[in-house]
Amino acid sequence: MKKIIILIHCKDQKGIIAAVTNYIASIEGNIVYLDQHVDGDQDVFFMRLECEFTENHFDLETIKANFQENLATPFSMSWSVHLQQNKPKMALFVSKYDHCLYDILSRYSTGELNIEIPLILSNHEDLQPIANRFDIPFYHVPFTKDNKEEGEKKQLEILEAYAVDFIVLARYMQIITPTVIEQYKNRIINIHHSFLPAFPGAKPYHSAFNRGVKIIGATSHYVTAELDEGPIIEQDITRVTHSHSIDDFIMKGRDLERMVLARAIKLHSERKTMVYNNKTVVFA
Amino acid sequence: MKKIIILIHCKDQKGIIAAVTNYIASIEGNIVYLDQHVDGDQDVFFMRLECEFTENHFDLETIKANFQENLATPFSMSWSVHLQQNKPKMALFVSKYDHCLYDILSRYSTGELNIEIPLILSNHEDLQPIANRFDIPFYHVPFTKDNKEEGEKKQLEILEAYAVDFIVLARYMQIITPTVIEQYKNRIINIHHSFLPAFPGAKPYHSAFNRGVKIIGATSHYVTAELDEGPIIEQDITRVTHSHSIDDFIMKGRDLERMVLARAIKLHSERKTMVYNNKTVVFA
Amino acid sequence: MKKIIILIHCKDQKGIIAAVTNYIASIEGNIVYLDQHVDGDQDVFFMRLECEFTENHFDLETIKANFQENLATPFSMSWSVHLQQNKPKMALFVSKYDHCLYDILSRYSTGELNIEIPLILSNHEDLQPIANRFDIPFYHVPFTKDNKEEGEKKQLEILEAYAVDFIVLARYMQIITPTVIEQYKNRIINIHHSFLPAFPGAKPYHSAFNRGVKIIGATSHYVTAELDEGPIIEQDITRVTHSHSIDDFIMKGRDLERMVLARAIKLHSERKTMVYNNKTVVFA
Amino acid sequence: MKKIIILIHCKDQKGIIAAVTNYIASIEGNIVYLDQHVDGDQDVFFMRLECEFTENHFDLETIKANFQENLATPFSMSWSVHLQQNKPKMALFVSKYDHCLYDILSRYSTGELNIEIPLILSNHEDLQPIANRFDIPFYHVPFTKDNKEEGEKKQLEILEAYAVDFIVLARYMQIITPTVIEQYKNRIINIHHSFLPAFPGAKPYHSAFNRGVKIIGATSHYVTAELDEGPIIEQDITRVTHSHSIDDFIMKGRDLERMVLARAIKLHSERKTMVYNNKTVVFA
Repeated sequence: MKKIIILIHCKDQKGIIAAVTNYIASIEGNIVYLDQHVDGDQDVFFMRLECEFTENHFDLETIKANFQENLATPFSMSWSVHLQQNKPKMALFVSKYDHCLYDILSRYSTGELNIEIPLILSNHEDLQPIANRFDIPFYHVPFTKDNKEEGEKKQLEILEAYAVDFIVLARYMQIITPTVIEQYKNRIINIHHSFLPAFPGAKPYHSAFNRGVKIIGATSHYVTAELDEGPIIEQDITRVTHSHSIDDFIMKGRDLERMVLARAIKLHSERKTMVYNNKTVVFA
Repeated sequence: MKKIIILIHCKDQKGIIAAVTNYIASIEGNIVYLDQHVDGDQDVFFMRLECEFTENHFDLETIKANFQENLATPFSMSWSVHLQQNKPKMALFVSKYDHCLYDILSRYSTGELNIEIPLILSNHEDLQPIANRFDIPFYHVPFTKDNKEEGEKKQLEILEAYAVDFIVLARYMQIITPTVIEQYKNRIINIHHSFLPAFPGAKPYHSAFNRGVKIIGATSHYVTAELDEGPIIEQDITRVTHSHSIDDFIMKGRDLERMVLARAIKLHSERKTMVYNNKTVVFA
Repeated sequence: MKKIIILIHCKDQKGIIAAVTNYIASIEGNIVYLDQHVDGDQDVFFMRLECEFTENHFDLETIKANFQENLATPFSMSWSVHLQQNKPKMALFVSKYDHCLYDILSRYSTGELNIEIPLILSNHEDLQPIANRFDIPFYHVPFTKDNKEEGEKKQLEILEAYAVDFIVLARYMQIITPTVIEQYKNRIINIHHSFLPAFPGAKPYHSAFNRGVKIIGATSHYVTAELDEGPIIEQDITRVTHSHSIDDFIMKGRDLERMVLARAIKLHSERKTMVYNNKTVVFA
Repeated sequence: MKKIIILIHCKDQKGIIAAVTNYIASIEGNIVYLDQHVDGDQDVFFMRLECEFTENHFDLETIKANFQENLATPFSMSWSVHLQQNKPKMALFVSKYDHCLYDILSRYSTGELNIEIPLILSNHEDLQPIANRFDIPFYHVPFTKDNKEEGEKKQLEILEAYAVDFIVLARYMQIITPTVIEQYKNRIINIHHSFLPAFPGAKPYHSAFNRGVKIIGATSHYVTAELDEGPIIEQDITRVTHSHSIDDFIMKGRDLERMVLARAIKLHSERKTMVYNNKTVVFA
């Protein structure tokens, strides 16, 4: 059996679902999952399909060509098709915080994530021993105002050498440069340690403490040129009280960061997210 | 514009979605919502559709006949179609607790529920003043071991007189008789004040307190012949600590009961629930 | 038995707890609840005590005088004592939204709140029928830019006539004037329909929808001169997805508003909140 | 500065708090945290204190002797005192599941837990490589019906050799023998993958799936002779829908198991739990 995932995004039109599902039926595919969303305000249509084929009825290149000609062109679709057995390649960017790194590598080691992690990249050397512990290549690419161009060039070379599909910033404390953002558009996932849009920028736990909130949060989002303003993938929260210090906020927040980032990685790697209008459709 | 909701349930087969969506397209319907579920173990298929039609393209009786002939019969479907503008009629059964009653009547008064409440029925007279306050007919039908048959007969007469579509037990403290359950199969909703299957039966807050749980819950389910074992529609929980007494459990639990029952009523009345195998599919 | 609640707030000093608990023991009081909090950064101490006395050992005026002389003066305490049987009087301010009003009146009617609600005040006449339904006096005090002084004078007269202890804004859509805020300092509770500090001001559900958040919230806080920036008493959240419209946000948000406001009223009326530094200590 | 934690448990009596806090004040201690609980039904009193002392005012042995003589004996207290700088030694028991093991070792490596992990013990060899990865001694102690006595003897020898303070069963799939339970009473923490008391015993995710629950949970508890019936330390839950398979339940449950077990370890190791009447008081 072969399983494919199809993502479709286009202007809302009558008969799209019928046309697509007819096509799948005509090539002997079995739809095991179908979810769709119509944004009535924006007049936009989204669909995610999972289809199974027996080996002898399956030819991905023919499907691609026919889908493009008979469906994507007439309906003016943006679309993509993914073979489920293909694991996306994820680069991990880290700085000095180790809790998200440990969490991701642990999940990777237990086989929870359908990805490959070919490399870890950092602007510091501190976390190299953890990379070693999990036997993953570690690249130290210092990145400061002074060597910005050089650093960016080095980053891009490494990403290309490993044919990286997407990047995860696991508490990477550097701004990503516009060139990298452009080349990996909607493919760079950040974890921000607040309930965005509250407390963007630096030291959100301190700000939350000073404001006296009763709930703190974490947010994973795709990175865009505007800091902490990209499309949100996942958020979660936990309760705090007057009895918690800033250090307690930070400690409780670590669990939020771990969980929210792990869920975002899982959603993205299983092709369950679609981006439009600086928002995400998440077919979870 | 006319809007209909179609619920489909049958053995899983290739091409169902295509056939159904084709048919809707062929009669100029616009699918604004489609959700489906395949239970791979049981090999069962479920679908919920919301379709909009312009007035001049809409004839419900023709749709019913054609759907039956061209789709339901060939695919051996269980199915139903509902005109969204038709509000289901809900009978409220209560005993002496008033918090769920107040909550439902408040939501009804604010226009949150797309239902009609033609009557409230009780085995006690205590809550008559609340029914009066909200101008809803109140029937006192005493129900004890000794007058069981008479009580049941009286209940059924009232339910039929008002052409009731479904029944909600808002902390009604009597067993529903098998005849009533049979006549309103999967149409009687109960709220149980525990996180089922933990603590079925009487005094669940006391049992939860004695066991020392750190979380209490409430469960709404369809009533079946087995007490507290019917298909679960919705559940929710709240945290408790050693500092909470049984009275605190009861007070905190009231909010759970209110919310969980209100959500179940909303889901059922909007035809978002389907029952099979003593479980529910909830297309929320 | 008589039960009192004592709230204490002062600079942190060694021996406070010993001094206070010694005093209670010396007058034959039984401490049934004690909670305290030290803010190490601000060097501030907070304590809440519940003590029971047999009738013949209880004289509130003597306790007040002795506590002031022997404890409050030497330790420079801000403090207050409350007889539990005294129900605080709460004025309800509303405009046109009825869901929080219904919820509060329902809880009041079921006996969940240890308060009296002597009056409902509104700048519109729309909700008068609900006040009538629950037999509570309703005052229509129009409040616009043009009659601001007159409106404020009328409000204060009514509040004083009923000896109101605190005010609850149940989706009251008018700014409270500084004179009223000053007279009821830390005694006016508002419900804001967002997860503050995200989305202050008007139309927060619209802003949340446009930002594409995955979680929405509600916040109850004491009213200060700065709009939506007062000390937070309670917050809660619920999940949303891409499939929810703004209307869905509003509908789901109503349940948050109800619950969060009801909890804040309960906490305040049971003297479980203390304010300092634009934050609250909540001894829940 | 030296910091101690005092736990007290006795029959409720007037004047306990005053006596204890007086004593701490008399030896120049500063109370930075005090929490107490009275179980009115059982007439039992619990207290947890954190006190700081300057080095020159601190002599632990003198405190112990005086506390016993002047407080514990007259009030018939069960009590204990702990120097915060002393890290409890925790033995990890595992079988074949690795997700809780990875999570605990990651938290241990990042310095989140104030413990030492001197050893990992297993009835299988599968997880030895993970122990190696984190440089922790691994003991393979096969444990079957046939070598039960030998296995237990081996376990106890190892635990004693390392002076282990408490044991964590991180999805250890063997029954703990009564002798071990007796020797480590209220010091063996298990994680059960259901919301106890629902679904005790084997395969709880399968049972939850078959019952059609809308929420699944995990429970950490102290091990007693009755399987899955010991005092509950912590529980948490997550939502599931009809669209989740048993495998999805298992995958989502892994995150619950990780979090709930990690919180229980933290609470126990920070001496925030007290056991009585098969329940816990958790001063969190």
